[in-house]
Amino acid sequence: MNAAKTRKAIAVIHGPNLNLLGVREPEVYGSATLQDVNAALRSLARELDCDVTAQQHSSEGDIIDAVHAAGAAGHAIVINPGAYAHYSYAIRDALAAVAVPKVEVHMTNIHARESFRQSSVVAPAVNGVVAGLGVDSYLLALRAVAAMLDKQRD
Amino acid sequence: MNAAKTRKAIAVIHGPNLNLLGVREPEVYGSATLQDVNAALRSLARELDCDVTAQQHSSEGDIIDAVHAAGAAGHAIVINPGAYAHYSYAIRDALAAVAVPKVEVHMTNIHARESFRQSSVVAPAVNGVVAGLGVDSYLLALRAVAAMLDKQRD
Amino acid sequence: MNAAKTRKAIAVIHGPNLNLLGVREPEVYGSATLQDVNAALRSLARELDCDVTAQQHSSEGDIIDAVHAAGAAGHAIVINPGAYAHYSYAIRDALAAVAVPKVEVHMTNIHARESFRQSSVVAPAVNGVVAGLGVDSYLLALRAVAAMLDKQRD
Amino acid sequence: MNAAKTRKAIAVIHGPNLNLLGVREPEVYGSATLQDVNAALRSLARELDCDVTAQQHSSEGDIIDAVHAAGAAGHAIVINPGAYAHYSYAIRDALAAVAVPKVEVHMTNIHARESFRQSSVVAPAVNGVVAGLGVDSYLLALRAVAAMLDKQRD
Amino acid sequence: MNAAKTRKAIAVIHGPNLNLLGVREPEVYGSATLQDVNAALRSLARELDCDVTAQQHSSEGDIIDAVHAAGAAGHAIVINPGAYAHYSYAIRDALAAVAVPKVEVHMTNIHARESFRQSSVVAPAVNGVVAGLGVDSYLLALRAVAAMLDKQRD
Amino acid sequence: MNAAKTRKAIAVIHGPNLNLLGVREPEVYGSATLQDVNAALRSLARELDCDVTAQQHSSEGDIIDAVHAAGAAGHAIVINPGAYAHYSYAIRDALAAVAVPKVEVHMTNIHARESFRQSSVVAPAVNGVVAGLGVDSYLLALRAVAAMLDKQRD
Amino acid sequence: MNAAKTRKAIAVIHGPNLNLLGVREPEVYGSATLQDVNAALRSLARELDCDVTAQQHSSEGDIIDAVHAAGAAGHAIVINPGAYAHYSYAIRDALAAVAVPKVEVHMTNIHARESFRQSSVVAPAVNGVVAGLGVDSYLLALRAVAAMLDKQRD
Amino acid sequence: MNAAKTRKAIAVIHGPNLNLLGVREPEVYGSATLQDVNAALRSLARELDCDVTAQQHSSEGDIIDAVHAAGAAGHAIVINPGAYAHYSYAIRDALAAVAVPKVEVHMTNIHARESFRQSSVVAPAVNGVVAGLGVDSYLLALRAVAAMLDKQRD
Amino acid sequence: MNAAKTRKAIAVIHGPNLNLLGVREPEVYGSATLQDVNAALRSLARELDCDVTAQQHSSEGDIIDAVHAAGAAGHAIVINPGAYAHYSYAIRDALAAVAVPKVEVHMTNIHARESFRQSSVVAPAVNGVVAGLGVDSYLLALRAVAAMLDKQRD
Amino acid sequence: MNAAKTRKAIAVIHGPNLNLLGVREPEVYGSATLQDVNAALRSLARELDCDVTAQQHSSEGDIIDAVHAAGAAGHAIVINPGAYAHYSYAIRDALAAVAVPKVEVHMTNIHARESFRQSSVVAPAVNGVVAGLGVDSYLLALRAVAAMLDKQRD
Amino acid sequence: MNAAKTRKAIAVIHGPNLNLLGVREPEVYGSATLQDVNAALRSLARELDCDVTAQQHSSEGDIIDAVHAAGAAGHAIVINPGAYAHYSYAIRDALAAVAVPKVEVHMTNIHARESFRQSSVVAPAVNGVVAGLGVDSYLLALRAVAAMLDKQRD
Amino acid sequence: MNAAKTRKAIAVIHGPNLNLLGVREPEVYGSATLQDVNAALRSLARELDCDVTAQQHSSEGDIIDAVHAAGAAGHAIVINPGAYAHYSYAIRDALAAVAVPKVEVHMTNIHARESFRQSSVVAPAVNGVVAGLGVDSYLLALRAVAAMLDKQRD
Repeated sequence: MNAAKTRKAIAVIHGPNLNLLGVREPEVYGSATLQDVNAALRSLARELDCDVTAQQHSSEGDIIDAVHAAGAAGHAIVINPGAYAHYSYAIRDALAAVAVPKVEVHMTNIHARESFRQSSVVAPAVNGVVAGLGVDSYLLALRAVAAMLDKQRD
Repeated sequence: MNAAKTRKAIAVIHGPNLNLLGVREPEVYGSATLQDVNAALRSLARELDCDVTAQQHSSEGDIIDAVHAAGAAGHAIVINPGAYAHYSYAIRDALAAVAVPKVEVHMTNIHARESFRQSSVVAPAVNGVVAGLGVDSYLLALRAVAAMLDKQRD
Repeated sequence: MNAAKTRKAIAVIHGPNLNLLGVREPEVYGSATLQDVNAALRSLARELDCDVTAQQHSSEGDIIDAVHAAGAAGHAIVINPGAYAHYSYAIRDALAAVAVPKVEVHMTNIHARESFRQSSVVAPAVNGVVAGLGVDSYLLALRAVAAMLDKQRD
Repeated sequence: MNAAKTRKAIAVIHGPNLNLLGVREPEVYGSATLQDVNAALRSLARELDCDVTAQQHSSEGDIIDAVHAAGAAGHAIVINPGAYAHYSYAIRDALAAVAVPKVEVHMTNIHARESFRQSSVVAPAVNGVVAGLGVDSYLLALRAVAAMLDKQRD
Repeated sequence: MNAAKTRKAIAVIHGPNLNLLGVREPEVYGSATLQDVNAALRSLARELDCDVTAQQHSSEGDIIDAVHAAGAAGHAIVINPGAYAHYSYAIRDALAAVAVPKVEVHMTNIHARESFRQSSVVAPAVNGVVAGLGVDSYLLALRAVAAMLDKQRD
Repeated sequence: MNAAKTRKAIAVIHGPNLNLLGVREPEVYGSATLQDVNAALRSLARELDCDVTAQQHSSEGDIIDAVHAAGAAGHAIVINPGAYAHYSYAIRDALAAVAVPKVEVHMTNIHARESFRQSSVVAPAVNGVVAGLGVDSYLLALRAVAAMLDKQRD
Repeated sequence: MNAAKTRKAIAVIHGPNLNLLGVREPEVYGSATLQDVNAALRSLARELDCDVTAQQHSSEGDIIDAVHAAGAAGHAIVINPGAYAHYSYAIRDALAAVAVPKVEVHMTNIHARESFRQSSVVAPAVNGVVAGLGVDSYLLALRAVAAMLDKQRD
Repeated sequence: MNAAKTRKAIAVIHGPNLNLLGVREPEVYGSATLQDVNAALRSLARELDCDVTAQQHSSEGDIIDAVHAAGAAGHAIVINPGAYAHYSYAIRDALAAVAVPKVEVHMTNIHARESFRQSSVVAPAVNGVVAGLGVDSYLLALRAVAAMLDKQRD
Repeated sequence: MNAAKTRKAIAVIHGPNLNLLGVREPEVYGSATLQDVNAALRSLARELDCDVTAQQHSSEGDIIDAVHAAGAAGHAIVINPGAYAHYSYAIRDALAAVAVPKVEVHMTNIHARESFRQSSVVAPAVNGVVAGLGVDSYLLALRAVAAMLDKQRD
Repeated sequence: MNAAKTRKAIAVIHGPNLNLLGVREPEVYGSATLQDVNAALRSLARELDCDVTAQQHSSEGDIIDAVHAAGAAGHAIVINPGAYAHYSYAIRDALAAVAVPKVEVHMTNIHARESFRQSSVVAPAVNGVVAGLGVDSYLLALRAVAAMLDKQRD
Repeated sequence: MNAAKTRKAIAVIHGPNLNLLGVREPEVYGSATLQDVNAALRSLARELDCDVTAQQHSSEGDIIDAVHAAGAAGHAIVINPGAYAHYSYAIRDALAAVAVPKVEVHMTNIHARESFRQSSVVAPAVNGVVAGLGVDSYLLALRAVAAMLDKQRD
Repeated sequence: MNAAKTRKAIAVIHGPNLNLLGVREPEVYGSATLQDVNAALRSLARELDCDVTAQQHSSEGDIIDAVHAAGAAGHAIVINPGAYAHYSYAIRDALAAVAVPKVEVHMTNIHARESFRQSSVVAPAVNGVVAGLGVDSYLLALRAVAAMLDKQRD
């Protein structure tokens, strides 16, 4: 098999309002911008020998399309659905429909916030969830899906 | 009156993730693809002497626009809102705003699945609901709206 | 195999208060009587080349017995459980116990009425549900179970 | 009009377990038997110049049939649905389907008992409810429907 | 014992907004005024050989005081708590504290109205409830408490 | 006292759908038929020196009548209310009305099934409940009521 | 018609604890006193060419009486029910009983506070609600009812 | 500073139905009258070198006014809101608005009674709650607020 | 500072289905079209010396983007989220992320409609809410944010 | 195979407060002490040719360890979890983790007591439940697990 | 009787995390350590002429054993169950099983904290509850049980 | 400062039933034993240059003590509370009381399992949560707390 073909690839999907990271309520979400997060992800990806592509969408439909595209390409998914986590059964269905490694990420500890944030309707459709660890939530999720891709290739 | 003008027309609107039909969890949704469904609809439409146009949208906003367009054109609506059925009050409002025959469709028996799938917030705004009968859910809904259009013209 | 033996047969079971159809709240349930509904069913049955027998029961126990009888005879079931749909777990169990095609019917759009009517405890035990389409709810359900019987025989 | 024809008639329908009145938990339901209740009703009926027929049924279906029969005959209804009051939507539908004066009766104060007894799903389909007054609950209900019949004839 | 002393006396307590009876939403509450209701009560009281005093209060505290006063005087109570029925645990406690015959009255069928009107927190503290029968609700309640007073004196 | 008179007698009442035992979902309910269950009960009854009569009813009303009859005859009751366990307040009232030993039986572990099966509204009116032990549920219940009858006669 | 007679008049009704405005939790309710609010209302009233009378009551009964009085006089109502908004069905009924323009006011954004403050049981009985805008909540409500009075007189 | 001026003062506010103490359900509330309670409070007050004034109100509005008055005078508050504890958000707001020591009192153990009595909506606005200890509930609360006043003056 | 730069600007954001205003259920939403509303807003804006730009979006994502844009430009926001008000936590987060004056608008009295319309999940993230006053809801909201902008510039 | 090795063994695990049996609320739990229960179990065990060891623990952790030990030894389990039945998901997990016959026991009819006692979170992890039959609950459970051990050895 | 024998004795039982008092969230729980609390209790005990023994346990089982021991010794109980108050039905049963004076204590006002802290499942099994008064909660509870012991000895 | 003193140390606390890892329902929890998990943690700890100590407890009290000990020693905490996660407010309080980095771990995706497992009452007291990633859940949590310790020392 062609090595380029099987290189591990991971789609990072940022949901609504994450474009305002660093600006929006920094006492809640921290001062790192989305650019900072993506740079950290790319840096770790190099270390783990995989490719990362990052995208941010405000629209539920665009996130669904991005999940489908990753699934079709066989890319693992690291997804921070933002507030959609709490009601988007459509994104849940999209994730359930793709058979790739997938981990949900939240920068804040959603369990310690408003009650509507304490459950994720998306979570049952992913392999795992990492929450509350700021930028590290993303980095740990990246490690997790990279490890799953490694196992798939064994 | 011009016969062409009054030919019965029906807009079939497929919601999110239905583009993956046949691929997505086939043990749940069956092996027919969306193309198969549309072909079966067109075939029955010919038999019932009416026109069918089918479209699929991931975005809630696009579905709302499609409902408005059908309403403005006087086309009946067969809609499978997918997971939006369970929380999109905006699609419900769109359907309530158009005075054309409209039937909601689900391929699976939503009443026998996860609890969140057991109620449809969209359903109060349509004439009727057909669920659980696979591709036949669509075909029966097509028959239903065609019959309503026939009655309107009497 | 004996052709008479394998002729498609469908038991239509009408639940409580449906004997008053046409008389009872016609602005809700329409002006067709139960006799009208049964005649329409028999007419469509001829078209679909199958036999229909219709019965109406006020008693939950009688409906359970009718379901058992249909199951034992291998007849498909079209059932309008009336208000029992909303609380009769015993009818649900009866339906779950018989391995024949079975579709639940409601003439009104139960999703647009009082909250207690918005869920059916019976629905998880049938193949599908057709609601809100008046007499057509029955006719479409007949088509659905007839098609299932056809598939069984292939 | 024939006087006999228009004589006020009232069907008293006793639900399940009321046949045990006087025997069953007398500290809750009192020591009067169902025969005593019926005698008191007949006595008051004579005073109010109307006919009373009383019947007791254990079966939900039989109660539904009795309601239908009273409705068809134009008889007012005094009904003690017993425990069916708390879940029989089918009896509620039967009562909603008949356009005669109808009052629900409970001998005990259902509001002061177990929580499941504190609401009646049947009550929205009757004209009024009398509860907690023992045999007098029946007698007052009889007065109420007799008065309604009087008004209808004015 | 002095006959005048033991003459049956009944306090009729009308709650908030009942002063607008006949004016307020007549399609819901009927066209009889509070004066009409009180006149009908006095008329029946004469027939039943007892005294009726009627009062109307907008204030929860005044109703509590009226209940206490009736209890201290040994007068039976006919009370229409109006909307307080649905949340005034203080009026419930007042009624529970007085050992006289007491019946709660509603002119409308509260079970067929908004959900908040479908339960009465006051009801567990009275002997019985009469609802849905318009002015007759009051008159039947008067009969009921008069009968209880009669029994007490036997 | 006449020995025949005081011989221990036990009424076994099987609820709806139990006539299909052995046929209905055998992976849930096992392969023993109702005849097998009754034979095992009769065999144990001989060992315990008591009489067993078994009956099966689909109708709630028939079960109520059977409970009344057992109560009137002084027979202990072993009852499997089937799905009625989960909503029949009328059967609960029937059981509460008879002062004989009475035990509720379920062959499956209702606590490990659908949520609606996890509570029994009938249970508060019996002495005890045995669930989850297949045919042994019946046999242990028979032992329990036989022991209670023995104690009554001491 | 006599001009003085038809001059627009508006009753402003302040509920419990509003007498402490400016003193009570100023970080929540601001530093304006009730006198300041009333002065601002009178000033705007002059601009809008209408009369304003303002009153404050701690007692639910007094508020009900004030609503009745305004209704009888044909005065529009601007009402801040304070905490009564969250449970006083009696005030709701009072407002429903008067056919004048009526707007509910809250100075704070009740939707962003404790959960019990997030719904108003009074709101279904008024024309509209203005919340969260401090003193401006009152002024905008005054504009709204003044406009409604204008329309009534057209 | 003038000693008389700074003498500790405590307003004891008794809610509805407490005027019936000793008479009302003595098996629940004990045989001490309100006069007895007040005497015991005055006696302990002398021991603790502070002034107690006691008042009882049936009306929610009067209790609110009493709370305001105590707050304006700088008096600590011992309040038994009676049944208002369970729904009067207006009294809660009144208590939240005054910055004096305040303790809620219940003579009975509200946690062991009807479910509606098991939570107090007033409690979040006081410093502490003492319940279930009969007259001692009042005396301990008096000790508590007296100690808080002492600390304030340190 | 450049005067043009600091001119007050307000973004009016209309949510889904508002494009059908005047056409859609006019008995609910009135006969004014969205063009009429915008014209009225522009007219008032001239009076208040500020600029108004109005936009309508069916898509949740587009509304989020519009909120972000207004926030970045320092424009106040008048938003009618339509049905998204009842479930779009993503729009709520968008509004929470921008530090400009913002008021939520509903033309109908959402508190008097279906239960799902009675709460707004968006409301906690705005300064205030105006509901039930038709086109005036918008105009009053415009006044409110204009006043806030004025205060910011003081 | 060595007979001693395969002798049936059953661990009886009594939960918290059962050490007070016979002393604690005897009107609820009966007068038999835990020693009496254990003696009766040993006596029946002899009859059934199996070994019983009984232990009582107040601590949830000790019960978990006892379940693990029984599981590791291949002993069947008869467990009365006491109040832990109603909330200990940890004991449920312990039971789910061991593949031995296991039956839950309650001496009282938990379905007829406080609502919190009416469900057992432990029950889904056992084979069956016996409740309400006093000491016989234990004895019947012993019979049940002994029979299951017998079947395993066939 | 021997005076030493009848000396009043009180067991103070501190639940989990109270060993961290003074260290753990001092802004919530104050700066007094558990040693300080115990010293204050011993000091008051001397004043009240009784003995106090204090113990702290992290384990639910140890608290149950301590309650049993106090009950067996006839010692009154002052118990701060800490977080166990909110779910330990086992501790509730232990307290219900011992017939000694017993008062539950919370240093903070649990009613003003997270919703899970607002109810105590333990409270129905004690005589009374003192909450929100810091160290004084313990001291007042000590006074209460000492007074109850005094009454027992009268 | 002494280097040994400041070496990063992490306490790994395994809750109930985790001692059965690899044995207990391997299709749910995987085949790795607790020894395997601890070995993997120690291996990663060496890589991250920190010390790991691992302990497993069945008892809630022991877990609380272990949390306290880690807090006192300044060790970071990686905790898998097992089923205690779903109800132990006492462990939550213990975690809230210690000011060290702390992450909750679940090997399975608790969001995709039984409803009681879908929320953790412990989670609001930790920095973050990692769930669903098998042994990797532990390893990622170790990385997270190690990073937090690193930041603390900067």
